[in-house]
Amino acid sequence: MISRRGLLTGGAVTAAGALVGCAPATDQPGTPAAPQSAPSAGTSTRAGTVATGIDRAGTPAQGVAAGTTASRTEPFHGPHQAGVATEPQAHAVFLGFDLLPDTRKEALVRLLKLLTDDAARLTQGRPALADTEPELAANPARLTCTFGFGPGLFKAAGTESPVSPLPRFTTDRLDERWSGGDLLVQVCADDNVTVAHAVRMLVKDARSFARVRWAQRGFRSATRRNLMGQIEGTGNATDLDEAVWISQGPLTGGTTLVLRRIRMALETWDAVDRTAREFTIGRRLDTGAPLTGTTERDEPDYARKNRLGFPVISEYAHIRRAHVADPALRLLRRPYNYDDGLTPEGKPDSGLLFASYQADIDQQFVPIQRMLAEGDLLNEWITTIGSAVFAIPPGCTPGTWIGEPLLT
Amino acid sequence: MISRRGLLTGGAVTAAGALVGCAPATDQPGTPAAPQSAPSAGTSTRAGTVATGIDRAGTPAQGVAAGTTASRTEPFHGPHQAGVATEPQAHAVFLGFDLLPDTRKEALVRLLKLLTDDAARLTQGRPALADTEPELAANPARLTCTFGFGPGLFKAAGTESPVSPLPRFTTDRLDERWSGGDLLVQVCADDNVTVAHAVRMLVKDARSFARVRWAQRGFRSATRRNLMGQIEGTGNATDLDEAVWISQGPLTGGTTLVLRRIRMALETWDAVDRTAREFTIGRRLDTGAPLTGTTERDEPDYARKNRLGFPVISEYAHIRRAHVADPALRLLRRPYNYDDGLTPEGKPDSGLLFASYQADIDQQFVPIQRMLAEGDLLNEWITTIGSAVFAIPPGCTPGTWIGEPLLT
Repeated sequence: MISRRGLLTGGAVTAAGALVGCAPATDQPGTPAAPQSAPSAGTSTRAGTVATGIDRAGTPAQGVAAGTTASRTEPFHGPHQAGVATEPQAHAVFLGFDLLPDTRKEALVRLLKLLTDDAARLTQGRPALADTEPELAANPARLTCTFGFGPGLFKAAGTESPVSPLPRFTTDRLDERWSGGDLLVQVCADDNVTVAHAVRMLVKDARSFARVRWAQRGFRSATRRNLMGQIEGTGNATDLDEAVWISQGPLTGGTTLVLRRIRMALETWDAVDRTAREFTIGRRLDTGAPLTGTTERDEPDYARKNRLGFPVISEYAHIRRAHVADPALRLLRRPYNYDDGLTPEGKPDSGLLFASYQADIDQQFVPIQRMLAEGDLLNEWITTIGSAVFAIPPGCTPGTWIGEPLLT
Repeated sequence: MISRRGLLTGGAVTAAGALVGCAPATDQPGTPAAPQSAPSAGTSTRAGTVATGIDRAGTPAQGVAAGTTASRTEPFHGPHQAGVATEPQAHAVFLGFDLLPDTRKEALVRLLKLLTDDAARLTQGRPALADTEPELAANPARLTCTFGFGPGLFKAAGTESPVSPLPRFTTDRLDERWSGGDLLVQVCADDNVTVAHAVRMLVKDARSFARVRWAQRGFRSATRRNLMGQIEGTGNATDLDEAVWISQGPLTGGTTLVLRRIRMALETWDAVDRTAREFTIGRRLDTGAPLTGTTERDEPDYARKNRLGFPVISEYAHIRRAHVADPALRLLRRPYNYDDGLTPEGKPDSGLLFASYQADIDQQFVPIQRMLAEGDLLNEWITTIGSAVFAIPPGCTPGTWIGEPLLT
């Protein structure tokens, strides 16, 4: 295995920094090294789930190079797909595919075997079969490829779908070109060229079976702040076995994804003063602390009143509307910012690719979204313009493929 | 100064990782830390120019936080603008502005004072004046903001332009929406949210004077590979005082920028076999070594012949056409990849934002581009669809502004 890989990508290994004759190992002008991402109190549970819960049999991380600049890998095989509990990478592309009309069960099996094989190789720093740029595979940069099945895929397979489109929320302004899709491929890595290469390989292999309906590109900051300045991810689900992973039926070990494209009216948001913005969110913008606390992780005190007898955290504040008391019903949010440039007037076309994983969309996502749609003050500055739901099959082991329990 | 900054962004400092009460300093799920970018043999000259040649009087780097996750800064003040010799950051947005019809010399001075002030603050991790998201300024992530003047700006100022549009090359297929522009703002950083925030602030402040003509977003890989798999930057100019910085006239300490948007036909490139691709480039794809050598930095031997008597590196190979023997005439290339998603057929809309700095466009860029246009084999897979030229004024000192020697 190693020698074959060495044969294919030996040169790329040197290019990645370890062995070039006259160039030092640190010869990498310009771009971030792999993140020094020691898991925090808030994310260690998730990271721990991956590290301890996954059977790593199969393809151990070989890295790119033996040197100090080795590119990190995330495991591919295991009971859960990577890219959900995985500590979020810096870059993501979400690809939504429409199946071609003649892609039925048998073709789906071929497609998923192919994509599983691609992902198993690429995530471990190995070229895909017939990879035309094997050098670009040699820098996995924590690449994960996560697959999701929309209602249309189950229909094509002649099987009942475990997921259905969301109910219509009054605040939705959905654009078809950012909505729906039969098959999801979520590609995440800490290097954008790695993402681009994996997308290219996967799209090529899918082309005989499906056509890209949308491609949504996102990024995260080391500060966890979104483009409105808020800190993302506070109060995320931590008990993943309860809140995220499905524990019965063919989706056991899997989950569901809700992907919403939320446009932010940054121009008008910027015109609002700080007090009003913090009142809208229910948190301070600087620290991320709730208005009733002093640090980001303080539990909001929703009962506290101000001197006039009104709640300190408004009935319509974003955090109160999104609050879920039961940890088993929380969402695992894993959002990415998007920024698709500027309009001719210089207004940013940007916002959030809100991605949440939950065991049960109807029990977890829908009630929260209903509360938000009914009365979140933030609605004045955000608009959901795309929406899609997918079942995320469980992970697989070497020799099996993603979706096998659902399609056989 | 420090207390004022503390007042404005104190909370953001904690959010960036150092001081949050109940969250460890490493609580940053997801994204790369500042790059561990020890300059290499190939880039140390450039880095050295910045580090030793620049008067750092003014605003020393204060960083984001005193902790281990401090965000790095690049100096703003000095004889040269940052963002040219600066070790390339991971992300860039190139903004081209058209001046509004009534923006004449006096207004230009106001505009440039404003933008200089923004850049001096933001690059050092301080909010812009009237910054609506000061928290987003607290993570400079090696932010640089570089300003360039197109022919139209000089015309508006009633001054003769030191730069003129390029001659038409036969291989150009220029699209107006990616070409021209009176004012360039090049924003680079290792964090995309930092880039987005700086762009937002700069565009806001420019809005009374100019309108965004184009915004081109790019990224680089730690491997230096572009989307075709080639290693970028080999044989770059190293003697910057000769090749890049202008040494006489009002542009002394400045340079010029040629920005070309080069679309890559990745689909057809991928269909070509490796031997043909390497013949096209004149280098091996794995190591980046010339076909006559074994490592990336080996000098190509253009005279060497194969057994049949033909040159090993073809007369039409990309590296031979782009070769410049005289180091003083080399370009400082600082390209970024672009990837604007996929066509409905799943074909990538991607390529290279080729950015080169040189003291003299006519003496340095034009002859090379002419050679390439006349016979580069690579032309079958690349097409220049955008083109712009700018004079890059010298740097400034505290109390002065970018462009002052040119406009006063």
